[in-house]
Amino acid sequence: MTQSVDQKASAAASATNEWLTAFQQALTAHDADAAAALFTDQSYWRDIVSFTWNITTVEGGAGVADLLRATLDDVDPAGFRVTEEPAEEDGVITAWIAFETKAGRGSGLLRLVGGKAFTLLTTLDELKGHEEPVNDRRPNGVRHGAFRDRVTWAESRAREATELGYTVQPEVLIIGGGQGGIALGARLRQLGVPVIIVERNERPGDSWRKRYKSLALHDPVWYDHLPYLPFPANWPVFSPKDKIGDWLEMYTKVMELNYWGSTTCKSAVREGDGWAVVVDRAGEEITLRPGQLVLALGASGLPDVPEFPGREKFRGDQHHSSAHPGPDKYKGKKAVVIGSNNSAHDICAALWEAGADVTMVQRSSTHVVRSDSLMELGLSDLYSERAVAAGMTTFKADTIFASLPFRILHTLQIPVYNAIRERDAEFYHRLEQAGFVLDFGEDDSGLFLKYLRRGSGYYIDVGASELVANGDIKLAKGQVAELTEDEVVLSDGTHLPADLVVYATGYGSMNQLASGIIGQDVADKAGKVWGLGSGTTKDPGPWEGELRNMWKPTAQEGLWFHGGNLALSRYYSHYLALQLKARMEGIPTPVYKRAEVHHTE
Amino acid sequence: MTQSVDQKASAAASATNEWLTAFQQALTAHDADAAAALFTDQSYWRDIVSFTWNITTVEGGAGVADLLRATLDDVDPAGFRVTEEPAEEDGVITAWIAFETKAGRGSGLLRLVGGKAFTLLTTLDELKGHEEPVNDRRPNGVRHGAFRDRVTWAESRAREATELGYTVQPEVLIIGGGQGGIALGARLRQLGVPVIIVERNERPGDSWRKRYKSLALHDPVWYDHLPYLPFPANWPVFSPKDKIGDWLEMYTKVMELNYWGSTTCKSAVREGDGWAVVVDRAGEEITLRPGQLVLALGASGLPDVPEFPGREKFRGDQHHSSAHPGPDKYKGKKAVVIGSNNSAHDICAALWEAGADVTMVQRSSTHVVRSDSLMELGLSDLYSERAVAAGMTTFKADTIFASLPFRILHTLQIPVYNAIRERDAEFYHRLEQAGFVLDFGEDDSGLFLKYLRRGSGYYIDVGASELVANGDIKLAKGQVAELTEDEVVLSDGTHLPADLVVYATGYGSMNQLASGIIGQDVADKAGKVWGLGSGTTKDPGPWEGELRNMWKPTAQEGLWFHGGNLALSRYYSHYLALQLKARMEGIPTPVYKRAEVHHTE
Repeated sequence: MTQSVDQKASAAASATNEWLTAFQQALTAHDADAAAALFTDQSYWRDIVSFTWNITTVEGGAGVADLLRATLDDVDPAGFRVTEEPAEEDGVITAWIAFETKAGRGSGLLRLVGGKAFTLLTTLDELKGHEEPVNDRRPNGVRHGAFRDRVTWAESRAREATELGYTVQPEVLIIGGGQGGIALGARLRQLGVPVIIVERNERPGDSWRKRYKSLALHDPVWYDHLPYLPFPANWPVFSPKDKIGDWLEMYTKVMELNYWGSTTCKSAVREGDGWAVVVDRAGEEITLRPGQLVLALGASGLPDVPEFPGREKFRGDQHHSSAHPGPDKYKGKKAVVIGSNNSAHDICAALWEAGADVTMVQRSSTHVVRSDSLMELGLSDLYSERAVAAGMTTFKADTIFASLPFRILHTLQIPVYNAIRERDAEFYHRLEQAGFVLDFGEDDSGLFLKYLRRGSGYYIDVGASELVANGDIKLAKGQVAELTEDEVVLSDGTHLPADLVVYATGYGSMNQLASGIIGQDVADKAGKVWGLGSGTTKDPGPWEGELRNMWKPTAQEGLWFHGGNLALSRYYSHYLALQLKARMEGIPTPVYKRAEVHHTE
Repeated sequence: MTQSVDQKASAAASATNEWLTAFQQALTAHDADAAAALFTDQSYWRDIVSFTWNITTVEGGAGVADLLRATLDDVDPAGFRVTEEPAEEDGVITAWIAFETKAGRGSGLLRLVGGKAFTLLTTLDELKGHEEPVNDRRPNGVRHGAFRDRVTWAESRAREATELGYTVQPEVLIIGGGQGGIALGARLRQLGVPVIIVERNERPGDSWRKRYKSLALHDPVWYDHLPYLPFPANWPVFSPKDKIGDWLEMYTKVMELNYWGSTTCKSAVREGDGWAVVVDRAGEEITLRPGQLVLALGASGLPDVPEFPGREKFRGDQHHSSAHPGPDKYKGKKAVVIGSNNSAHDICAALWEAGADVTMVQRSSTHVVRSDSLMELGLSDLYSERAVAAGMTTFKADTIFASLPFRILHTLQIPVYNAIRERDAEFYHRLEQAGFVLDFGEDDSGLFLKYLRRGSGYYIDVGASELVANGDIKLAKGQVAELTEDEVVLSDGTHLPADLVVYATGYGSMNQLASGIIGQDVADKAGKVWGLGSGTTKDPGPWEGELRNMWKPTAQEGLWFHGGNLALSRYYSHYLALQLKARMEGIPTPVYKRAEVHHTE
């Protein structure tokens, strides 16, 4: 006999309540061991700021006990409870929970197996006394009544723009005004944290607008919402670059961000409890003195152009993919694109569409996944029209994603990519027949883990692969030996005639990029950014358990890193903003297990 | 014994289903009399475009039978059904319904009393084969695959901007780019109707920005959402004018509207099946040839400045309220504001706040209602944070509002204003003690009906009334006899010394405004705009049953009027857009009971 749906739900509810009661009792009693005993042997507690003022994952009973012993006195957790009916599937009970700490209110997701916690995610959602002014707390807009010398909204905004950075110092300075800086700026403004965003481009959105003209988001709209202001129902699935640029510009304006375009950061030096940051704002040199410095520089900040011999001899056009203007002037020309990841594919396809003769140079194996398959098998349970129709909210989807422990994420992803390989077997076969060298990540865990581990090595196919498979985009393989006046020469002696060479060769590391601002010493003190310590290519161990240095305290007090795609920028900006706000308000923020630095580059 | 909640719900459901089944049977049998017999003696069927290609209300069985005899053959209505559980309260069953017609899909709201229809609202929501590209129909954004000579989104937008109005003619021309024109433009774009919006101001939002600096919306945020893109959760309750201006500008951009700023319309002449419209676009004269012409000119298009004797003698500043810059330069000066409605109060208060000596001249009685009371008693069941939390959507709130027959709307409003009078008795007493002459509309039905009938005669108090009551704003009463070099002189001989005179004297009629574009003949053919024919001041009879000429076919083929506050612009733009789209697609649109013209001015 199988249980009825009602019986299952009721059993899930009592098991969850039993666990939460026991957990709360252990916490109240400050009995770390009793709490630890409520977790399975192989278990993961990921905490985002609520217990640890860090983003950290502990494993097993020992990890749980260690975390609690270090934090209980300060955190004073209370009120663990479910916020909706728990669900059970395949023996795993999933429960949405809420709780309080001394400093704030939190929520999370709990998975129980056999009555014990297999995974627990806890997040700090708001600081007590510093709740966001949204919904029933939204501002009135005008102050009703009569007041001498009233200052209007426009006057107040104008005064702020005049004063902030000049006579009034920002609490937080964000360097980099792409989606990451903008999302964080919006969160901080809601929290009443004075913040300036500096951006070398003129307008918000320019970091998208200035890229090659065929660029569009490879992530779908449901995955891309910014905080507070979701895209409307008529927004395209895959935003063209100029359209997302316009959205970011609009967003920056209506969220009332203090956004300094045409501003470059020349240096940032630690000074007292804060920073002295010299910026050039459209020709004017200004020294800013923020308490907290956030680098939201983007993964595409520092073009990496290999120093191939003979580059200076080449007579045609040559540029990095980030400077590629688009295909219009290359009709009938011979183009050689060095690289085989996203930009390389997009640029090759656009050149072919415009009538160029295109050769792609593949230097190492590449993970390719068809956009349709990625959407349907990889994302659509959480981020799709179907998910929305089934009641999935962006916050819930983000939370579910965040609740999957990095340690076992690959085991959850491998089956997805196995299914994709099966579904698209004929597609992959044809690509390989054409000579393209494929991979699915070193452990076959696919795209998202490649992104987290190294941020490169893949192409989400939106059409170029068909051109590679059928030979419309010619394929060359191997390393580049040199350039001549009119050719790219490969190590195996292949000569590729070229009027245009595009270096789709990726970007320098965040450490390199940061060192240009904070200096090599401070950059190295903070260490390598991004990657999990998985021991795979470009992501050396030891295992870190979390993304290095992202959205959490670094080894350099007052220095923070922020970024990621639109989804990660949206989700983690929430928790980074709360950490910054807490520091501004002088709320104690003892950091549990600040990550050690094992690598710089 | 009272019924249990479940019993009540079940009884409501069966009564509704019984009614809908009988109604559908009568419609299918084309038996207008049988359908009419399903309505109570005093009953109202309001149809918005779905049966009538008009916005019209018929009354009682005879009205229903007449409507159906005229429309059934064309409309072929089918599938009447409930879309959620009907509810019963005080003997009235309320049911959300849906149905189909030959041309489209519709929905509505039905109220049953004693098993018969007391009110029925039917609306056309979409045209079959022309559904909006939203949610699961949203565009892909980029076309995946490889296509020679691909045109990017930015190129396509740029081409459209270059061609539309020059080598390609718009189907619809909207004159007036305030919230009305913008909302309609957004709807039409979703429906694939080529449209240009022309606006005399430079940028979208300028019609707000250019008004007096203390202006803020008097309607709350929940009532003000534009189509597709609701305000975010942090948006203020009452938008300051510059902030709503920014929102409109950004909305216009992200909704990809073809918005011609700095463009004035010089003339519009009927030509064949369409119009020849001469516009001046930033100095360039262009003749546009749209099929349909929409006047969305706004109620504040034509300042009405009375020709008081002696105006030319006055040495101080004098201007209409629409040209009032704000109070900053009038500190310590004597200001006389003529008028006692919204603008007069706002301007008086701002002048007082800035330290001017202010006198308001009340020429006739004024309806005053405190903002708090209006929100809580007048709006909050439909438009408030509380309503949203209880599951009220904007569409539902709008539909409920639209379902209340204009014929009996005053009977529903009178109790609300009686409650407000009671609640604020002391406030009203103090205003009267100060000499202010109050009214609540001729039948005590309050603000919204004054708005619908005449669009003037009221103040939503956000603080100025206190200044009137306590004498900080001085009050003078009566008509203006003349101006001297430095005074305003009233008919009773009162002399009011003045450095500044503000004419808060309202605006000319829509007919006057329209005649400047389409000529007096065509303006008079279309007749008076706005008002219900209630037989009250400025709204002469006969009873019209609907707002004159708004959002529906006029007596002049191809000429349409659009506008109203943000809420009306949002709701009715939907149905106006469908009427325009149907005409563009050649879908038959036989208009039932096109309104006769009884008045011009």
